[in-house]
Amino acid sequence: PRFLGKFSRLNNFGSLRDPRYEYETRYFDQILDHFSFSGPERFRQRYLISTEHWTGPDRQGPIFLYCGNEGDIEWFAENTGFVWEIAPRFGAMVVFTEHRYYGKSMPYGGEEEAYKNATTLAHLTSEQALADFAILITDLKKNLSAQSCPVVLFGGSYGGMLAAWMRLKYPHVAIGALASSAPVLQFEDIVPQETFYDIASNDFRRESVSCFDTIKASWDVIETEGQKVNGLSYLTELFRFCKKLESADDLSNWLSSGYSYLAMADYPYATDFLMPMPKNPIKEVCRRIDSYPNGTDILRRIFEGVSVYYNFTGNVDCFKLDDDPHGMNGWNWQACTEMVMPLSSGTKSMFPGYDFDLDSDAYWCFQSFRVTPRPTWITTEFGGHGFKNALRWFGSNIVFSNGLLDPWSGGSVLENVSDTIVALVTEKGAHHLDLRPATVEDPDWLLDQREIEMKLIQGWLDEYY
Amino acid sequence: PRFLGKFSRLNNFGSLRDPRYEYETRYFDQILDHFSFSGPERFRQRYLISTEHWTGPDRQGPIFLYCGNEGDIEWFAENTGFVWEIAPRFGAMVVFTEHRYYGKSMPYGGEEEAYKNATTLAHLTSEQALADFAILITDLKKNLSAQSCPVVLFGGSYGGMLAAWMRLKYPHVAIGALASSAPVLQFEDIVPQETFYDIASNDFRRESVSCFDTIKASWDVIETEGQKVNGLSYLTELFRFCKKLESADDLSNWLSSGYSYLAMADYPYATDFLMPMPKNPIKEVCRRIDSYPNGTDILRRIFEGVSVYYNFTGNVDCFKLDDDPHGMNGWNWQACTEMVMPLSSGTKSMFPGYDFDLDSDAYWCFQSFRVTPRPTWITTEFGGHGFKNALRWFGSNIVFSNGLLDPWSGGSVLENVSDTIVALVTEKGAHHLDLRPATVEDPDWLLDQREIEMKLIQGWLDEYY
Repeated sequence: PRFLGKFSRLNNFGSLRDPRYEYETRYFDQILDHFSFSGPERFRQRYLISTEHWTGPDRQGPIFLYCGNEGDIEWFAENTGFVWEIAPRFGAMVVFTEHRYYGKSMPYGGEEEAYKNATTLAHLTSEQALADFAILITDLKKNLSAQSCPVVLFGGSYGGMLAAWMRLKYPHVAIGALASSAPVLQFEDIVPQETFYDIASNDFRRESVSCFDTIKASWDVIETEGQKVNGLSYLTELFRFCKKLESADDLSNWLSSGYSYLAMADYPYATDFLMPMPKNPIKEVCRRIDSYPNGTDILRRIFEGVSVYYNFTGNVDCFKLDDDPHGMNGWNWQACTEMVMPLSSGTKSMFPGYDFDLDSDAYWCFQSFRVTPRPTWITTEFGGHGFKNALRWFGSNIVFSNGLLDPWSGGSVLENVSDTIVALVTEKGAHHLDLRPATVEDPDWLLDQREIEMKLIQGWLDEYY
Repeated sequence: PRFLGKFSRLNNFGSLRDPRYEYETRYFDQILDHFSFSGPERFRQRYLISTEHWTGPDRQGPIFLYCGNEGDIEWFAENTGFVWEIAPRFGAMVVFTEHRYYGKSMPYGGEEEAYKNATTLAHLTSEQALADFAILITDLKKNLSAQSCPVVLFGGSYGGMLAAWMRLKYPHVAIGALASSAPVLQFEDIVPQETFYDIASNDFRRESVSCFDTIKASWDVIETEGQKVNGLSYLTELFRFCKKLESADDLSNWLSSGYSYLAMADYPYATDFLMPMPKNPIKEVCRRIDSYPNGTDILRRIFEGVSVYYNFTGNVDCFKLDDDPHGMNGWNWQACTEMVMPLSSGTKSMFPGYDFDLDSDAYWCFQSFRVTPRPTWITTEFGGHGFKNALRWFGSNIVFSNGLLDPWSGGSVLENVSDTIVALVTEKGAHHLDLRPATVEDPDWLLDQREIEMKLIQGWLDEYY
């Protein structure tokens, strides 16, 4: 599982046909390189804005700014109902800012040029993205005579990291940040590298030990099968791939990805976040795996189980591996440059054993992008082992919210760091569940969590006014 | 006085033949572009290091890090005796880090290539320099097993701005900063644009009103003279220029520069900082100007006065204007990109009237460098009108020291912002006088100031241990 550092696969989603929330789509003329003067290049940064509930500059109405992450901003707006739903209560303007090099915020006129090579991709970094947000919101406030209106940041996953970092690096721009499922500590050796796969594995074990054991046992079976004459053909047919597998590893990686995303999206109600999935999808995976009588082929069970992720609708005729796993994918570029988040799979994991290997990743990155990772840069720029101390002494007004089912939670901040750097942990939450739109199925603990978040935000505003 | 934004003229100084302090010169293999992955370019960053008095990693001996500014680091080391002199008392390692694109820290193999054009100069920015410092010191500490040793930052003038900004942006890297004569507020309209020339003018008026009046009256005389037939020849001869003046403005700019540097270096003892000068040089300028009997030609008085700056040794046969005022000068590049510090000369000033004009500067910058200034970037990146609030709420352990004779003091922090963001103001101090080596002529108020600075630094260390 080499690049599971990517949080999700968002790039291939098209525009939403029927957005749930009302907003205006605007573009901001943005500088491409904020930290050097390497050229006059600019690009059009997309942002979505709604002033419907804003109480305006005279009443210092707040501005809720979502820090876009690695995908189309419309899609994040659609899946971040929390911000839209609480805006009326706060009289807040809502702004969803797209991250450069994603969605429609492409330099060099479009995706094809922007993703052409290392030279055009050069400016796809988190620091440049933070500066984009700072400049865009500063300019927007000026144009609306809203300089004195407080800005509150929101973000989930990588976007949550950006929100937290933004609050640290640009405290003069925003008064607080809600960083949901933001693994800001998942760098170098700050947290154990096994934490991601251990948590994902435990999500399965807590549903069923036999399910966990079945999955853990399956890797050897797959490998053995793959080495047989016609073994790959057999596996291809059994798992219904459209094209013949080139190696058993490809199958293992495909399964590992499925399990990981199931763990991230192990929500208490049916969702269509990464893929259409039932409520508590891991419970369903394990129900299927465990429902076969003893003696049933283990690989058949595995296939039925993982289909909860890859084919819950039952509409898929055959499965594709990533069409081009070495392709010019934005998050792969980020993982190959500064977002080096070491993940290993150890003995407690149900996943295939894997030791993070920087050299091997660096080789892959150079082959793919002609770029060399800088694995210690993020910790130098934003704080590494001393990050919590930096938060304690220099940060304030950040909420780190995490659900313990989420494999990324192990790389986030799970304990209060100070009076104003608060950790909100929910035992049964998954990847930034709190940011999702409210549903009638929301459990009480989720309603409570959101209530606390609103109170904390209100506290920041009260302090500001 | 277009680009008096430059603090001093340091680039033309050669290496010191006989350094006053003992250190080892080392080079660090540095990344050229930290915030983008525009290429694999690296450069050798020079730093000076002394571990002579360091108590070492086991005793968590502190590291005193000087943030190099726009010039040769050996020259700053020579003129920043304070750091060397207090190191033994603290058991501190001393590191003077050279700023990229100055001294011997040249990308692209050398000054000629580095200063070739906007493409090669692109990465000469303050953010890149801060990242250089953060990476260098992090790596140095690691190599010395000194990760737990606290770092204290020092800097004067632009270097003081870097020290203060570094403490804000990289609080996990350093525990405190002494920012001497750092005009961090001299951007946009945070402080009045007239403050620099008003303070410089008052430095002359406080010595002698007639001196101030004479200088103020001289500009019209120069302009009138310049319009006469043979007027420029007359002025050239009177002021002993090597080459014939091309305009009376050139003379006025030359005089204005001299007066400005006199104000910055109005030290209470003789120095050889910018130029060899007597103690209290403005007093000497005014003594000369006032010593002529009534009726003496005003321009002769002016010449005698300004010679205190340009020719105190009396060894200069003839004066040169800047050989190439539009040349590829590092600080001009910085002033043409992000360090846009608006200065105007108003009615209370003795200098020629001048209104800061961004358009005109931008035109000059484009002609000179093919680059366009970003006048609002520094305030967005480091905080503008809200900078003091950002300092109050998010900063700590910064001393802003200023002498009120220094024209740059008006753009710095002159009042305590919080318990730990402290302003030290001396009525009779000039440009980062406190950082200079101790002399037998140091007045009591200077000794007191340095004593307070040492106590504050000791307080940061006590808090850290």
